[in-house]
Parts: sequence; C-alpha cells; structure tokens
Amino acid sequence: MSFNHFDDQGQAIMVDVSGKQPTLRTATAAATVSMQPDTLAGLLAGRTTKGDVLGVARIAGIAAAKKTPELIPLSHPLAIHHAAIDFDTDQACGTVTVRATVRAFERTGVEMEAMASAAVAALTIYDMCKGADKGITISQIRLLFKEGGKSGTWQREEAQ
Amino acid sequence: MSFNHFDDQGQAIMVDVSGKQPTLRTATAAATVSMQPDTLAGLLAGRTTKGDVLGVARIAGIAAAKKTPELIPLSHPLAIHHAAIDFDTDQACGTVTVRATVRAFERTGVEMEAMASAAVAALTIYDMCKGADKGITISQIRLLFKEGGKSGTWQREEAQ
Amino acid sequence: MSFNHFDDQGQAIMVDVSGKQPTLRTATAAATVSMQPDTLAGLLAGRTTKGDVLGVARIAGIAAAKKTPELIPLSHPLAIHHAAIDFDTDQACGTVTVRATVRAFERTGVEMEAMASAAVAALTIYDMCKGADKGITISQIRLLFKEGGKSGTWQREEAQ
Amino acid sequence: MSFNHFDDQGQAIMVDVSGKQPTLRTATAAATVSMQPDTLAGLLAGRTTKGDVLGVARIAGIAAAKKTPELIPLSHPLAIHHAAIDFDTDQACGTVTVRATVRAFERTGVEMEAMASAAVAALTIYDMCKGADKGITISQIRLLFKEGGKSGTWQREEAQ
Amino acid sequence: MSFNHFDDQGQAIMVDVSGKQPTLRTATAAATVSMQPDTLAGLLAGRTTKGDVLGVARIAGIAAAKKTPELIPLSHPLAIHHAAIDFDTDQACGTVTVRATVRAFERTGVEMEAMASAAVAALTIYDMCKGADKGITISQIRLLFKEGGKSGTWQREEAQ
Amino acid sequence: MSFNHFDDQGQAIMVDVSGKQPTLRTATAAATVSMQPDTLAGLLAGRTTKGDVLGVARIAGIAAAKKTPELIPLSHPLAIHHAAIDFDTDQACGTVTVRATVRAFERTGVEMEAMASAAVAALTIYDMCKGADKGITISQIRLLFKEGGKSGTWQREEAQ
Repeated sequence: MSFNHFDDQGQAIMVDVSGKQPTLRTATAAATVSMQPDTLAGLLAGRTTKGDVLGVARIAGIAAAKKTPELIPLSHPLAIHHAAIDFDTDQACGTVTVRATVRAFERTGVEMEAMASAAVAALTIYDMCKGADKGITISQIRLLFKEGGKSGTWQREEAQ
Repeated sequence: MSFNHFDDQGQAIMVDVSGKQPTLRTATAAATVSMQPDTLAGLLAGRTTKGDVLGVARIAGIAAAKKTPELIPLSHPLAIHHAAIDFDTDQACGTVTVRATVRAFERTGVEMEAMASAAVAALTIYDMCKGADKGITISQIRLLFKEGGKSGTWQREEAQ
Repeated sequence: MSFNHFDDQGQAIMVDVSGKQPTLRTATAAATVSMQPDTLAGLLAGRTTKGDVLGVARIAGIAAAKKTPELIPLSHPLAIHHAAIDFDTDQACGTVTVRATVRAFERTGVEMEAMASAAVAALTIYDMCKGADKGITISQIRLLFKEGGKSGTWQREEAQ
Repeated sequence: MSFNHFDDQGQAIMVDVSGKQPTLRTATAAATVSMQPDTLAGLLAGRTTKGDVLGVARIAGIAAAKKTPELIPLSHPLAIHHAAIDFDTDQACGTVTVRATVRAFERTGVEMEAMASAAVAALTIYDMCKGADKGITISQIRLLFKEGGKSGTWQREEAQ
Repeated sequence: MSFNHFDDQGQAIMVDVSGKQPTLRTATAAATVSMQPDTLAGLLAGRTTKGDVLGVARIAGIAAAKKTPELIPLSHPLAIHHAAIDFDTDQACGTVTVRATVRAFERTGVEMEAMASAAVAALTIYDMCKGADKGITISQIRLLFKEGGKSGTWQREEAQ
Repeated sequence: MSFNHFDDQGQAIMVDVSGKQPTLRTATAAATVSMQPDTLAGLLAGRTTKGDVLGVARIAGIAAAKKTPELIPLSHPLAIHHAAIDFDTDQACGTVTVRATVRAFERTGVEMEAMASAAVAALTIYDMCKGADKGITISQIRLLFKEGGKSGTWQREEAQ
C-alpha cells in the first residue's frame, strides 16, 4: 500500500518531485451543501435582490486554491494557471453542488488544490447561511477527475 | 429568513459586532473521511511503524482554526483560546471521524473555526492517503454543538 | 513634528499601546478609480449580464482590512469588528469611488485598515478592467473620517 | 470590450494561462503621496537623524509584490524574479513619488504586482506620517510601462 | 515534568487559556549572529553608504512577531501591543546581537513572539550577508526575560 | 565585499535573477537545541506515551520552508520540490540537532529555505518544552551544504 508523504523511516516529508518533468495537470473536485429547501430558495432569491452568496463563495474557493500549500502541510507550492468554480442547485432537495477545477503545468498534481477549493467554497456557503440554518451539512467532497502526470487520467465512476 | 453578511442593499459586509459583549464561545464540528477498509488498516498500522497520518492532520486542523479569517471572506478575526482535534476510526467501515473543538472569549461565535478545522484535517488525511486510494470521500462536515452568545446553546440531534 | 513608529534613536518600532484603554474606533477611507466612460459603462452593464466586478472588489477590500497587519510593517494586529465597502459611480466622468469603513474596539485606530481596504478594492477593479483599459488610474486614497481614541474625531473637510 | 476574469456566463474565474508560453515580463507602476511640505521636510531630515520612513516603505512594497496573489482575488500566483522601488521627492510640492518595478519569466504579466507594490509602499508612508498629518493623500497609482507577452510593450504617455 | 501542548492522551492541542485573566505580558529574547569581522565591518560601513542591513532585519523581526501564530503550530493568536528590536555589534568578534522585545495584554505569554522575532531578524542578516560569507552562524537564541501571568517574572542569569 | 540585496545606490532590492537559467538546487542547514538532559529524556519518552514533540516540529519546519518568502524580506518566492527534516538526539548532552534539506529547480538557491526551516523546527521544540525549561537555547543555526547554481557546491568543514 502506497502512502505518500513519508520516508522509509516513517517520517513526514514533502516528497521530492525535482526529478519529474512538468506536464499539464488538471483536477476537478466537488462538494455538496445540503440545506432546507426554504433556505436554498432564500439564497437564490437573494442573488438578485439581496446578496450574492454564491458569488462570494466562488471568490473564496479560488483564493483557497492559491492557499492550498499553506493549508495542507506536505503539499508542494504550485503556480496555478487556472481556477474556476461552478454551482448547480437542486431546489427540491435543497442542495448546492460546488465543482472546482484547477490547472497547472507542474511536476505534481493539482488534486489538493481542487479539493481545498471546493471545500472552502462550501464552507463559505455554510458561513453565509448559518444564521438561517445551523444544521446545514457539507458532504461528498471528492475528486471527480484528474489528468496529467505519470499516473495519467483518473475519473470517478459517477462523473459523466 | 435571516442571511448573515449582507446589508440592507444586499451588499456583502463583515457584520458589525462592536456593540456585542464578549462571552465565552465554544463550538464543535465534525467530518467523516470514508476510505477502503484496507487503506484505513494501512493508515493505522503506519501510525507506529511508518508515519503518523493523523498526527499531521491534527496539526493541519489546528492551524486551519487560526487561519479561518483568511479562508472565509466575511468572517471576523478572532483570538482563539483553545483548539483540539480528536479522531475516531471504524475499521470495518473504513471511516475516520474528525471532531474539532474551538473556544474563544469573543463577540461572535467560533462555529466557522471549528468547521474549517475539521474540514482541513479531513483534507490532510485525503492528501496523505490519495496515493493509495484517490476515491476517498469527505462527508458530513457539520456543526455538532455551539455554546455562548445571545443565541445560546445549540446541539445537533445526532450528537450525544 | 510627530512621526509615529520610531523610538528616540530613530529606530523603527511597533509603538507600545499597552498602556492605552480600548475604545470604539471607526475610520472611513476612500479611493477614486478613473477610467474611460465606455469602460465604466461596460463594467456596470456586466454586473447583471456578465460579471460582477464591484462584487469581487468588495470581497477583496474586506479581506485587505483583515490583512493590514501583514501589509503595513509597523501596524498593530487588530481584531476588526466591522468592515464594509460602498461604491459610487459617475458614468459621465468614468469614475468609481470606493468608500471603506472599519470599526473595532481597540487600543489603536483603524485608519490603516480603512485605507488599505479602499486601496485594495480599487486595485481589484483595476485588475479586472485592465484588459479593456491599461491606463486606468487610482487617485485620492484618503482618510475621510476617524472617531475614537485620545485624539477623538477627525473629519476631512470635503466629506459631508 | 474585453473584461478579464469572467467566463462566458459572467462568472469570475482565474483565466486559464496554461496554453501560453512563458516570456520575460516587466512592469513599472507609480504612486504619488502628497503631504504638507513641512511634513516631507521632517521625513527627509529623519532619514539620517531619526528614522528611515522610505526604507521601511521600500521593504513593505517589495513584500507586497510577493503578496499580490493573496490580495487580488483573480490574479495568478507568480514567481517574481526581481522587485525594486525608487522614490523621488519634491520638497516644494510636498510629494513623494513611488516607482515600483517587477520582473518575472511567466505566462502572464506582472502589472498587478507593480501596482500593488507601489500602492502598499505609499500606504506605509501614510502610516508612518499620519501622526503629523492625517490629511495626506495617495494619488496617481498608475501603470507606467509593461513589456513582454503577446500584447507586447505598453508605455504611458507621461513617462519618458 | 510539564510539557505544554498535549492533552492527557498525548495528543497535540492548543492549550485552553480561556479561563485565564489577561495580564500585561512582556518578553525579551536574543540571538547572536557570528560572521567574519571583515564582513561585519562591511555591513556597518554599508549602513550609511550602501544599504542598511540592520534596518531591513529590524522590519523582518517585527513582522515575524506578528506572524508567530502561523509559524509555531500550537501557539495562540495574540494581539501584540508593542514590538521592538535592538542590535549590538562587536566588531572585534564579528558578532551582532539581536534583542527583541514584545508586549501584550493577553491570557498567555509572548515568549514565542520574542523568540521568533529575534530568530527571523538574525536569519535576515544571514540572508543579506551570505553572498560575502556563507559560513555565518546564528547562535544563542534564548529567552532573556519574561514578565506577567501566573508564573510571574523570569530572568536569565546572564542578563543584567 | 559582496553584499546581496542592494543596488548601486545602497537601496534594498530583490536581486534580478531573470537572466539566470534554472538549475537543480539543494541546501541543508542545521540547528541545535540544548536543554536539560532530563527535559530531553521526558521529550523522548513522550514520543510514544504522551505526545510527539519532534513530529510537530517537523511539520512546522516543512511549513516554514514554504513560508520563507514571507519571512525574509528580499528573498525570492520559490517553488520548492522537496523538504525534509531529521532529528538527532544526544541524551547525555541534552541536545537535539535539527537538519533541514530543501531542493528546487530554480534560478536562485534554497539556502534561506533550509535555514528558516531548521530555525522554525527548533523554535517549535522550544515552544513545546518551555513549560519544563524556559532556559532552553537554540544554537548553531548554520548552512551545512549547498549545491547547484553558478557558485556550485559549498560544504561546511564540520559536515562529513
């Protein structure tokens, strides 16, 4: 079994990637925010008349992609070339699905950047809605897709 | 319906809490990391013989509690007085439950600090195990408990 | 003449404010972004149909208020209790006026937080419009108002 | 009209630059700090006998060039290869002109790094002189020159 | 033996200080930078004719005091009220002694802020002189004095 | 005598490295933490039964390597490809020797990253042991080895 980030004495390290060639890397991750359908209806109504929760969450998610090396102790600092966040909402279920995509021409993958970006965008939605509903839950933070590097393309089965 | 963080023209603001009195605030949040039971067995075996995934994740979670004002755009900078992270593992299910508790004597609550702390600890576990299992999922990031402030104590029903 | 931030040997210091009592402090600062009237018309049209430049700039400005102690070497770290940003636009002149207000119950003033917040919101507008107009200029970054502390209230004459 | 930083649905993004080739990029930006001539005289006298306001501002400006990706939400993280700050003073007018130059071999320009660097150096001068003169104003934050990349060289007319 | 920062199961925590009363805390730490006497002579000559190594190091040290909660994993975020750095030089020995003092009205001590401040000022001197002398060594990073809190005043014997 | 980081008027700059070719750079630095032998015995016993001081210090040191451009004012932002920290303990003397190695394919060296990493790991050990022994001293922060770049390999004589 292959655990990253430890040397052969079990000590945490930032893995040496200096021998790798840079390749174009892309990763997409998602997160689902589940709230009362009424809360979601209020959030969506507010986009035009009150305040733009999803617009703020998008900025937070993009900033988090840049901040990933500070958040994840053994991750490498990467020069991100692209970051974008989409939202899908299901009003009947009261869910917002966050999808974060990150791209870089680097020696190591951008999976953690995409995961952190989706997670922080979801946390920001929680923050802005918790006055209405403290019970909101964030689930299914998961990698959907990655491309580039020696291990090539990986796609979660659910993703089409 | 009460959405925080917008003024009466719908513009995002950092809500004015200067008129509030500081009180002792506590919040506990959780997150569940689901992996293959074999991956979890490897992780737990590694704690003694190879590397301490959970030890690294704990430090990342505590650091994230301090970094919350940088991650969540409209949150207030808070002087945290306590942060702690516990892990429960269920080897049959392949799950690690992260529980983060944060405390401060402040004018506003520490829910976001606890939520961000649990989320980043979970993301760190993902980072260190993704070489073995890219499909690991983080779910149920949720507030379990909060105490202090005008709205008083709130407890999620599931929590005992 | 009173220069802050130097001791009696002319060495830069973070001035000792530990002997002061905390009081409620408010500061408002402004900045003016001057662009081609056409560029401003495009920016304002985009708010509804394309993208919300001012919404992104507002989040950047609020974040900058929290980041002021990292930007200004001899400033004190402050626990900000409120931050808000307003925009006024003059389409004939092609100007956007940024107004940033910050409040805290602290031992020292929040002038720099308001100034940095207005400046960074204006820089963000520049960033998002520079593809259309590299010649955009930011001017009149200035304190409009401060209140609280031993020196009391100060108001720039222009401000009503 | 070309607004950067939005996709075709008007959503804020970090623009994808992964398809671009790195080229050598240089940008110079300026800012003007206007104060009472007496305040400037005191500042300049202090450089040798009391404290070095401009020396502190220079360090703040260089640090801000490195911090630009954290300040400007949709900017790309860049590996800066050079940063320098010059000051010109006009004692009769009471003005300090800050000029910041940044260089990098990158896929996107360093205009924002130069603009942020000049702005933060100017804000630092304000901070250190505000005890003597709260009315100090920062104006004319503007790009003077850029070079490199597909759009090539751009020079503001005023600059010789 | 009392190790801070672990709970009774040996897990790293940010110790709970919410039950403590804030008191005025002061700490002074020092560090010694040892270089070739010629290098020090060049550094000191440069203060007036070339560049001010110690002025830059002072700013770096004050910034590090503010950044301590990000550097030291289990430290508490503190609102520092004062930070200052002095240098003593011994030209015959080729040593620069850095002395950093930090003060805050807080629930926990500022020892780490003073230690980190002295260490980073010393590292900055190394950085600026390493072109002349890579063998420069930083030694004797040590607490000289602390005051405030339940444990009261502590003074290292060497300090007068 | 060659002082880095100043232009020919003695003004601090981030040296222009844009004309250099990237090469593989490695640097190793060390620091020695001296404590009472009893304190060290307690620290080492705690690794298995109480808490892992050295594990926390290792994470802090790796994070500091990534944070070096924020700590050292005139250093360049670098994309680190590898960071690792080893500890040697001498129980009779009560010393822990920290050794930090950093590697990157860059235009400038990683000496400061290695020095800062060793220093912050040592400061973290101090932080976690200061409850038992405030007199702990950090010494001999020094470069052991560097490789890569125009100046080639440099090795301290003591190092084998």
